[in-house]
Amino acid sequence: MAKVVIKITGKLFAQGNEHVIKELAATILSYAAEGNKVAIVTGGGPTARSYIEMGGSLGLNNSLLDLLGIESARLNALVLAALLGGYGYLPIPRNVDEFMMAWSTDKIIVLGGLQPGQSTNAVAAAIAEMVGASLLINATNVDGVYDKDPRVYSNARLLRTVTIEELEKILAEQESRPGKYELLDKVALNIIRRSKIETVFINAFKIDQIKLVLSGRKDVGTWIIFK
Amino acid sequence: MAKVVIKITGKLFAQGNEHVIKELAATILSYAAEGNKVAIVTGGGPTARSYIEMGGSLGLNNSLLDLLGIESARLNALVLAALLGGYGYLPIPRNVDEFMMAWSTDKIIVLGGLQPGQSTNAVAAAIAEMVGASLLINATNVDGVYDKDPRVYSNARLLRTVTIEELEKILAEQESRPGKYELLDKVALNIIRRSKIETVFINAFKIDQIKLVLSGRKDVGTWIIFK
Amino acid sequence: MAKVVIKITGKLFAQGNEHVIKELAATILSYAAEGNKVAIVTGGGPTARSYIEMGGSLGLNNSLLDLLGIESARLNALVLAALLGGYGYLPIPRNVDEFMMAWSTDKIIVLGGLQPGQSTNAVAAAIAEMVGASLLINATNVDGVYDKDPRVYSNARLLRTVTIEELEKILAEQESRPGKYELLDKVALNIIRRSKIETVFINAFKIDQIKLVLSGRKDVGTWIIFK
Amino acid sequence: MAKVVIKITGKLFAQGNEHVIKELAATILSYAAEGNKVAIVTGGGPTARSYIEMGGSLGLNNSLLDLLGIESARLNALVLAALLGGYGYLPIPRNVDEFMMAWSTDKIIVLGGLQPGQSTNAVAAAIAEMVGASLLINATNVDGVYDKDPRVYSNARLLRTVTIEELEKILAEQESRPGKYELLDKVALNIIRRSKIETVFINAFKIDQIKLVLSGRKDVGTWIIFK
Amino acid sequence: MAKVVIKITGKLFAQGNEHVIKELAATILSYAAEGNKVAIVTGGGPTARSYIEMGGSLGLNNSLLDLLGIESARLNALVLAALLGGYGYLPIPRNVDEFMMAWSTDKIIVLGGLQPGQSTNAVAAAIAEMVGASLLINATNVDGVYDKDPRVYSNARLLRTVTIEELEKILAEQESRPGKYELLDKVALNIIRRSKIETVFINAFKIDQIKLVLSGRKDVGTWIIFK
Amino acid sequence: MAKVVIKITGKLFAQGNEHVIKELAATILSYAAEGNKVAIVTGGGPTARSYIEMGGSLGLNNSLLDLLGIESARLNALVLAALLGGYGYLPIPRNVDEFMMAWSTDKIIVLGGLQPGQSTNAVAAAIAEMVGASLLINATNVDGVYDKDPRVYSNARLLRTVTIEELEKILAEQESRPGKYELLDKVALNIIRRSKIETVFINAFKIDQIKLVLSGRKDVGTWIIFK
Repeated sequence: MAKVVIKITGKLFAQGNEHVIKELAATILSYAAEGNKVAIVTGGGPTARSYIEMGGSLGLNNSLLDLLGIESARLNALVLAALLGGYGYLPIPRNVDEFMMAWSTDKIIVLGGLQPGQSTNAVAAAIAEMVGASLLINATNVDGVYDKDPRVYSNARLLRTVTIEELEKILAEQESRPGKYELLDKVALNIIRRSKIETVFINAFKIDQIKLVLSGRKDVGTWIIFK
Repeated sequence: MAKVVIKITGKLFAQGNEHVIKELAATILSYAAEGNKVAIVTGGGPTARSYIEMGGSLGLNNSLLDLLGIESARLNALVLAALLGGYGYLPIPRNVDEFMMAWSTDKIIVLGGLQPGQSTNAVAAAIAEMVGASLLINATNVDGVYDKDPRVYSNARLLRTVTIEELEKILAEQESRPGKYELLDKVALNIIRRSKIETVFINAFKIDQIKLVLSGRKDVGTWIIFK
Repeated sequence: MAKVVIKITGKLFAQGNEHVIKELAATILSYAAEGNKVAIVTGGGPTARSYIEMGGSLGLNNSLLDLLGIESARLNALVLAALLGGYGYLPIPRNVDEFMMAWSTDKIIVLGGLQPGQSTNAVAAAIAEMVGASLLINATNVDGVYDKDPRVYSNARLLRTVTIEELEKILAEQESRPGKYELLDKVALNIIRRSKIETVFINAFKIDQIKLVLSGRKDVGTWIIFK
Repeated sequence: MAKVVIKITGKLFAQGNEHVIKELAATILSYAAEGNKVAIVTGGGPTARSYIEMGGSLGLNNSLLDLLGIESARLNALVLAALLGGYGYLPIPRNVDEFMMAWSTDKIIVLGGLQPGQSTNAVAAAIAEMVGASLLINATNVDGVYDKDPRVYSNARLLRTVTIEELEKILAEQESRPGKYELLDKVALNIIRRSKIETVFINAFKIDQIKLVLSGRKDVGTWIIFK
Repeated sequence: MAKVVIKITGKLFAQGNEHVIKELAATILSYAAEGNKVAIVTGGGPTARSYIEMGGSLGLNNSLLDLLGIESARLNALVLAALLGGYGYLPIPRNVDEFMMAWSTDKIIVLGGLQPGQSTNAVAAAIAEMVGASLLINATNVDGVYDKDPRVYSNARLLRTVTIEELEKILAEQESRPGKYELLDKVALNIIRRSKIETVFINAFKIDQIKLVLSGRKDVGTWIIFK
Repeated sequence: MAKVVIKITGKLFAQGNEHVIKELAATILSYAAEGNKVAIVTGGGPTARSYIEMGGSLGLNNSLLDLLGIESARLNALVLAALLGGYGYLPIPRNVDEFMMAWSTDKIIVLGGLQPGQSTNAVAAAIAEMVGASLLINATNVDGVYDKDPRVYSNARLLRTVTIEELEKILAEQESRPGKYELLDKVALNIIRRSKIETVFINAFKIDQIKLVLSGRKDVGTWIIFK
């Protein structure tokens, strides 16, 4: 039995992607049916962006904007948990205590954000550390980590492995282009580093990638290596 | 000191309407500052519709679709509560117990839906009955109740007053055109009838209407009359 | 494995009926032991009536009277859940979130009411819809649905099947004689209709009826038919 | 501003006593309106007795029977809290954390039992100690503490004062006649002793007694004296 | 399958005892793995004493000091629950409702105190009664109950059995020497007496004792006998 | 009316410091009595260190060690909240939702940690941002921020102002000497930067410093300056 935490980009949760969402749910159900324990963290996606923009126009502070993002992420979590039928845990956990209660059952747990000032990537890392997950899968909308931003540079090269230090450097550059290209935030990075959590970055929109990774394959996506 | 419950259509909570939302918040803050106690119920609006459509394509059952609508309505409630600054209650109450706890403070309470199988109109009516509100304001996207559907018939006439029985008849016709024209559901109607709750239908997009009604004017919108 | 929701009239929970209550618990335990998942909703019964009368004399509003009925129903739920020993879930869920948490365990869930303005029949229907129950059993103190009120007309005839429309008509007549003869309320009816929930009305005091229905027999009680 | 905790016998909460309940509520409201802070603990009364008898016939263990008593006491608490209108806290607190949250508001708090193995008298004493109450009023169905059981001995004499040690002796004798004559249990006694809580026993059915005691009079009921 | 409740003295939870704590966790895990259901109540130990002393110097009342002891006991409970890995329930239950929810899962439940005015021994007894435990193990820092205080009298004799009445007498004497020698309080004693709960006193620091008792041996520690 | 968030080092909460703790409570009470709204975050201090060491010897993972630190910080929060008497909020909030509920009352809120992977400094910054605090006071066990570690270098110079960039550099050096010298973590820093929260570092053990800062003085401690 393996324990796995999967972060799914919120961009997946939009009309038009139902086919991918269904395949994702089926993949997770079948992996859990083999006796594995799974927690999933969903991002806020377009709903979060739209509410955060509206909140910004209304003059709300950053924490309140974060709360709008968190609730949007929970809405996406609800879609996925509902789709898992009797195998998904409801209601969506809102804090660490509720997550631990949920984890005490034999259900698949889906959650969104937990707290302002913290990304859903940080939530996924914290959850992975807490339950002692053997793998943290970070499924974004690109195939992994690139040496440059793939949206800007056509010659950006997908990395097979990356050290924490390289990732930190890429993150530092990334900060100046918010919203462009999503990876980890510093909280997530610190947790992954301090507990040496096995972590891979893949593409949420290509279900084969998640299937391969769950089946034990290491030649998909970008893997963090610890020295 | 008056106790007032206001239902706000979820259609208001969309980018582009920030100006109206701000005016609404200012109006409520100023009314509360005069010593009145206010609870607000927000609808799910376009976010609810979009998630319910996505959930429908995914094959979720009606209760789960309702839950998506409820969480969407809570997201809208969060926007408004956040905008009320230190005067709005957070977190958004999720059930009757939490509403009562919130109502025990001196804050303005904003909430979304509470339970599948029940509209946010029913929530507003139940809340109004529970706290003994002197007025239930139902603010939709039209100016009140019409003798025919104003979207279909250009000669539809706005009614100044309506009996529960007339409203029931209009509702019965309305049912066959879901999503077209929103008023009350039967649960709301039963609560209003059994407790003879003073109720007025106005337009949420015309802030003057809510200002006039809160100032005691009876010549705005459509009022339910009890025989 | 089947998922079944059973509404039990609160009239059962009174001294003198211990023998029936014990048989009911044994029947449910044995049905659950076969691998079926069961949720039970209890009515408020004589305790509710007595507290609602007292509350009425004290001048409480309808919502507060409903709350007294809800807490009475929860007291009855506690009796049954306690009697199920280690197989019944405690504490009694107080809202939809708590019900879903309870449902995530492998226990039998017993609950009372959830919200003012809503009968325990509506709760049972909402729960049945939410969990995708294959059967909703409504166990009252008569053998099913009659063409006339069996308390008034000695020639009232028990119906084997009833359409939603017929049930609606019977309900409409029933409303003028509150407390006389309990079936569904409109919320329950709407949920059953919209999700075409398989529903049967039987007598809670005749345990053989519930045993037969749980064993798959269709020739007991009154069944709702959908066209 | 004084802080007062009042234990009210559950026997008051029965049809026929509405007049006394109303006067009690009015007395408390007027005392609170003078700026005093009040918590009230209600007993389980006849509802508790009837459910405990039913539970006993069903073979439930003592803890579960206590839970039935606790929920019955909460039902009585709900009656009183509801009657206090906007001044009573809802929902009824179910544990120490919820009580403390409720006490942080400016409402009057009404609660029933908290935990099996502990009487509502013990709850009242614990609450009184926690909030630093200047007075604990124990309102039963007799005028105070007697040298013998007044139900048995017509020449029983009402004591004006009683030491903890005398009370302990009376309690020891009382134990052999359960349900006959209700005072404190040992938990309550220990708390009162260790914190020297000013305590008076009066008759809940004679509202003048509670009025006099709240107005500062010491010549009503039986007072505990500490050496 | 047996249901067992174990009270562990808080004195165990101190640096230097890690070896014993690990053995204890291993013993419990192996007992639970055989299909038994276990709840553990931890005492407050040195952390409680140190915070209670600090609180006393700060002038806090007895209830607040008890709360400090309760939170300290919960900290010890967290150590043990965390050490049980995926088999221990988290978060630590804070009241009876949360305990019952936790007990509805298949985890091992560890908790500290629940309420001021009540020792963790009383919590253990109440929990044992509620779940119908076949055995309550009270593991202190001595080998059982002695005819005199073993810290004072070198010729104190360990009793193999003790009646409730003898225990009561020993407790009465003990009261005058607070903190010296920990057994039961009166609440615990009353619960054990009224439900005739099989109870044994052993030494938490000698893991063999708990192993022997869990394996069914009756010749270890002191057993309460009921006439 | 100002809104202020104060982080207090956990090192203050140890026997021997009662005098300082009392002065701190008195200072906060008097500041709140002037109409200001205050939230306080306490660190874990020696209790946290001792439990984390014990947990480390037991082999617990980093998240579980963080949880031990969080509960220790809550124990310290309880000491301070209890000492504030009727003006401190209880129970100690355990997550963002509970903090917001507490903040809706007129009490002084004291809390410890909220989530693994995050320091109590981060909690203080997040809370300050959420409530729109005009000042965040970080009270450690030294007088502010130094150009070098004052424990190591006797010629370390106290800085009157520091930019976010300078602070970041100091923090980066600090990381290699855990536990030596406590300031902010990166989460806290990011929140302070993004919302330009007015922040000052002072010494918790010198109550005059907090008094001066609360009175509006800028010549105490080290202030963050934003360009």
